Amino acid sequence: MERQFQLNLKKSKLKFSVTVTLKKDVLDPQGKVVLNTLTNLGMTSLQNIRQGKFFEIDIETKDQLEGEKKVKEVCEKLLVNLIIEDYKINKL
Amino acid sequence: MERQFQLNLKKSKLKFSVTVTLKKDVLDPQGKVVLNTLTNLGMTSLQNIRQGKFFEIDIETKDQLEGEKKVKEVCEKLLVNLIIEDYKINKL
Repeated sequence: MERQFQLNLKKSKLKFSVTVTLKKDVLDPQGKVVLNTLTNLGMTSLQNIRQGKFFEIDIETKDQLEGEKKVKEVCEKLLVNLIIEDYKINKL
Repeated sequence: MERQFQLNLKKSKLKFSVTVTLKKDVLDPQGKVVLNTLTNLGMTSLQNIRQGKFFEIDIETKDQLEGEKKVKEVCEKLLVNLIIEDYKINKL
């Protein structure tokens, strides 16, 4: 019985990934710098690089829908600037 | 014929995404700060947050294998510190 309890404890965590990218029409100077540096290093076939952010979030819940709702709240509260950025949530 | 040429030109670009994450045992102070801030904002069910980097790379090639090889080179030349970071390449 205690073992079962421990198994349940172990399962009560869900892992999500969040990818934040700049919207299509927003300039990305950081990506430009990376592109220029790589071109200077001799990589000629690169057309474009855009940089974004990536988060792995562990949430204490067993319910995937509830987890996704929480992650969405996290994104909109802190991680994402909705004016210039888009985000995508994936279950890991 | 010219139209066909333009279509070929259009197709000669492949898009890859690269996700760079810290290795499992490497401390992530940036993620900790995000976690603390969210906890202070009232999000109590978060267990852990780790932050990584995300890149979208456009490469001038039609050959997916060649494209992947190029992206791998880009990663190991500049984007990833292989001592403390892992990376994953996806075709978009």
